[in-house]
Amino acid sequence: MIRTTQSRRRGESLPLVLRSLNHENRPALRIIPVGGVEEVGRNMTILEYGNDIIVVDMGLQFPEEDMPGIDYIIPNIEYLIPKKKNIRGIIITHAHYDHIGAIPHLMPMLGDSIPIYATDLACAIIARRQEDYKHYGSRLQLNEIKNDTKLTLGAFKIEFFGVSHNIPGSVGVIAETPGGIVVHTGDFKIDLKSDIAGRTEVEKIKALGKRNVLALLSDSTNARESGHQNSEHEIKLQLEDIIRDTKGRLIIGTFASLLGRLNQIIQLAEKYKRKVAIDGHSMKLNIEIAKKLGYMQFNEKTVIPIQEVENYRPEQVMILATGAQGEERASLMRMANREHRVLRIQPGDTVVFSSSVIPGNERTVQRLTDKLYREGAEVINKYMLDIHAGGHAKREDLKQMVEWIRPKFLAPIEGNHSFLKMHGKAAMEAGMKPEQILIADNGQVISCQGSVCTLTDERIPSSYVFVDGLGVGDIGEVVLRDREALASDGMFVIIAVIDSQTGKLRGSPDIISRGFVYLRENQELLKDVRKKIKDIIESSTTPNETLNPQYVRDNLRDRVGQYLFTKTQRRPMVLPVVVEV
Amino acid sequence: MIRTTQSRRRGESLPLVLRSLNHENRPALRIIPVGGVEEVGRNMTILEYGNDIIVVDMGLQFPEEDMPGIDYIIPNIEYLIPKKKNIRGIIITHAHYDHIGAIPHLMPMLGDSIPIYATDLACAIIARRQEDYKHYGSRLQLNEIKNDTKLTLGAFKIEFFGVSHNIPGSVGVIAETPGGIVVHTGDFKIDLKSDIAGRTEVEKIKALGKRNVLALLSDSTNARESGHQNSEHEIKLQLEDIIRDTKGRLIIGTFASLLGRLNQIIQLAEKYKRKVAIDGHSMKLNIEIAKKLGYMQFNEKTVIPIQEVENYRPEQVMILATGAQGEERASLMRMANREHRVLRIQPGDTVVFSSSVIPGNERTVQRLTDKLYREGAEVINKYMLDIHAGGHAKREDLKQMVEWIRPKFLAPIEGNHSFLKMHGKAAMEAGMKPEQILIADNGQVISCQGSVCTLTDERIPSSYVFVDGLGVGDIGEVVLRDREALASDGMFVIIAVIDSQTGKLRGSPDIISRGFVYLRENQELLKDVRKKIKDIIESSTTPNETLNPQYVRDNLRDRVGQYLFTKTQRRPMVLPVVVEV
Repeated sequence: MIRTTQSRRRGESLPLVLRSLNHENRPALRIIPVGGVEEVGRNMTILEYGNDIIVVDMGLQFPEEDMPGIDYIIPNIEYLIPKKKNIRGIIITHAHYDHIGAIPHLMPMLGDSIPIYATDLACAIIARRQEDYKHYGSRLQLNEIKNDTKLTLGAFKIEFFGVSHNIPGSVGVIAETPGGIVVHTGDFKIDLKSDIAGRTEVEKIKALGKRNVLALLSDSTNARESGHQNSEHEIKLQLEDIIRDTKGRLIIGTFASLLGRLNQIIQLAEKYKRKVAIDGHSMKLNIEIAKKLGYMQFNEKTVIPIQEVENYRPEQVMILATGAQGEERASLMRMANREHRVLRIQPGDTVVFSSSVIPGNERTVQRLTDKLYREGAEVINKYMLDIHAGGHAKREDLKQMVEWIRPKFLAPIEGNHSFLKMHGKAAMEAGMKPEQILIADNGQVISCQGSVCTLTDERIPSSYVFVDGLGVGDIGEVVLRDREALASDGMFVIIAVIDSQTGKLRGSPDIISRGFVYLRENQELLKDVRKKIKDIIESSTTPNETLNPQYVRDNLRDRVGQYLFTKTQRRPMVLPVVVEV
Repeated sequence: MIRTTQSRRRGESLPLVLRSLNHENRPALRIIPVGGVEEVGRNMTILEYGNDIIVVDMGLQFPEEDMPGIDYIIPNIEYLIPKKKNIRGIIITHAHYDHIGAIPHLMPMLGDSIPIYATDLACAIIARRQEDYKHYGSRLQLNEIKNDTKLTLGAFKIEFFGVSHNIPGSVGVIAETPGGIVVHTGDFKIDLKSDIAGRTEVEKIKALGKRNVLALLSDSTNARESGHQNSEHEIKLQLEDIIRDTKGRLIIGTFASLLGRLNQIIQLAEKYKRKVAIDGHSMKLNIEIAKKLGYMQFNEKTVIPIQEVENYRPEQVMILATGAQGEERASLMRMANREHRVLRIQPGDTVVFSSSVIPGNERTVQRLTDKLYREGAEVINKYMLDIHAGGHAKREDLKQMVEWIRPKFLAPIEGNHSFLKMHGKAAMEAGMKPEQILIADNGQVISCQGSVCTLTDERIPSSYVFVDGLGVGDIGEVVLRDREALASDGMFVIIAVIDSQTGKLRGSPDIISRGFVYLRENQELLKDVRKKIKDIIESSTTPNETLNPQYVRDNLRDRVGQYLFTKTQRRPMVLPVVVEV
């Protein structure tokens, strides 16, 4: 069946053959998570029905430790490129980078004419980010949608429902096709006490329970956490305690994209008569956009330029800063390092980290915390806060969603493989059967026909695409492996000038080494290696015979590498250069 | 005063001058944390009184992300080397690597004749580890102590008190000198419900409250956590629930050094009739040592070789495995990768992570978890466990210790700077005054005279000493910076053979690049760079004039570097080689 499906896709130019293969005379509905089901990030899902494709989200992922130098990772669109004329639209669930971040890189490859659909806030943030990528020369077709917008995109009838997350303007997507209804939650939590970051349209979601939904694609980011996610309302109470009780200056570090949280903080600042200075370019822009669109309301006079902070007494000021993950060049680290052009940390300051630490950043955040303490600040972080509220549904919320929508199939998305499995387990606790849970890998095709969805063996390309500087996809595994090897033990270049007549080394071999040992302090090793190189060359060449430079190089690489390892237990990358004269 | 102190130390050969400087006619008692007060790890403290020195602990620290290729970091002993004849003993508080790990590297520099004092378990583990460093040719003088041992080491009268930690045989140290009593807690928690990993000798500690302790050096590892540390007894109850209720095979991942935890687990395995297979060389050795010394009791037949696991039904077996931090070559990862010589993960297995994740390892642990789920296992980790018990005192315990001992001064040790400050704050909540809290940096000298301890400006060398392969201290900042640069953007070696007569390039320049871009797929860039190199050389040389190779090299480095950056937004390390012929 899979092979049939695949040949149908490949055989678009052969419709007659196709039809004879398709017994039901109807194409299969194909659901393909291209990214975001083996990681948190680079979310992108393809829905395909016949000659119609829609794409939900186009996000980026931040690199892992074993990807030095990489800026980020984006979804692989090899499958889409030859079919780009079939793409009826790109639907964006919300404005976070793990959902929009790949747009500037991928849209030039797919073509500017494909419409992008997103809420006003998401459109504005996408447009703003696009300005950073002007050099790509792309002009996006951005179309604003509201929660009640209905679209017809080829065979897809699209509706939306509002969800709570931690940025306003977040939606879930309902895609009705002749093959059945697919619901994509986007990122969501169920927050019935606060609509500061989007309101969960519970009635709309419950109504889906009666519409015989075929497949639910649902957010697994927090599936490993039990219970219900906390409401933003509880965070508000806790923030209020801190803001009310802090005597000195307040510096709050958070993400520029946590617009719900930022909204609450500014409201509380107004309540407790603190002026707010916003430090961080992207945070400032996001707040401006959100205010302009009515997602944030505050008095113009509340916000002051950071240069004016010193005109107020410490207890009259709050600074909103970026860099709560310990980023080297962001606002908080520059303050802590005394490198900020205006602000210094001063004794009496209280720094609040109001966002969770992204896994992998723990040590840099600790380094930042130590620096802040050294400068005399107090730090309030997760160790002091009782409540953490993330933007994602926890296990009980996920069950709730399944109970409301009652889908025939559940495909957990947005999370590591283990999160998806835990999500599936939660759904089974809510009454679903194992055969109703489809846990796909990146690129794995879910095929639905006759109201049955199957996890097939067909896989579209989904390997990592790395963005590094101006390059998209030009860094592969080989380059990364080399970077790791270079990082671990450095390199050792040998330049041997050999007289092609005599086969003898001319002069002493040159050695360039970086990241291995500090050569100036290892003169003896250097002397020994030079002697070794001489010996190797002499034993690899015969006077008056044609020099075999490849043979000499291989010998040098192997034997010098072995020698250095014996002497140091390190394996620098040995690169021999043989110059014949 | 500081300078006086320093000149006194330097002026040992001038006792007459010294005495005239010392108004009280008594040397100062000097307390110097050499490592462990700006990090978790490489714990080492010097106590110095006149011509007598004792050293407490000699630990290693695991490297940070920005130290690629480094095995670990050890304390700097530049200060001790010229004074090694004054060292009366090395006292080890317990057998963890952050307290003993630097012994094989540092003792050869200090001399084998210095006695090391440690409990039987610590002695055995130090001796076992020493075998891995036979090539250093060092023979340690290991002396077993018990909790009630009393030593006289020069001017120091040493006593001990037992503490709970997570390895048995852990002690605190009482050092009585003519200058006052110093108490060093080692790592400790206060565990009154379980003595599975050492008993807190509360009476002995309380008795110190009457002895007018001058300075307390106390463990800050968990100072940022509020409340009391959980007892190992509560962990036992939770582990018992898991072991009793798990149906299939149980695989428990933990540290080889958590001997208290391992002891509990094996006891529970016996209770629930599971055989125990131990996988991991160091874990097996540690358990053997602990059993031999009576710290663990179990039936010989409980432990089976891993080859025999398959002879039992899943519910009859438990596997104790190393690698719970996601280490690439450890037991758990090899099982998950199907690379283990005997064991495979099979559906129905339950893997329990029974140790906390070391900051920085979150992503590798997540990768391991995903692999385990992919193989069909269930994983029980911190998200499912309600109770975490570490081996370190939390804030309320730290207050308790201060209230028991009532020291005149508190110098928090063992933790990042911010932990020490929080520890200090807790002590103030317990009634100490700010001037009684001494928060030192690595190498900063605390000088005590006339029952007053002062944090001086004197600093002994305390910079990082890196161990990389066979090298100790031969990797410096330059090499690390190079490794980071190489990791981030790779390197680009240009080999230009120049005719010294004509100043012209001979043939086409050779290029060797690694970690930058994949050259085979970037032929055009390569062609352009070659042309650029030709131009640069032509403009940097004049025919018939002496070639200035340095000038050519500098030009190549700067201009090719700039060119590559413009083209790619990457900055590989450009290394030009000019060969004159």
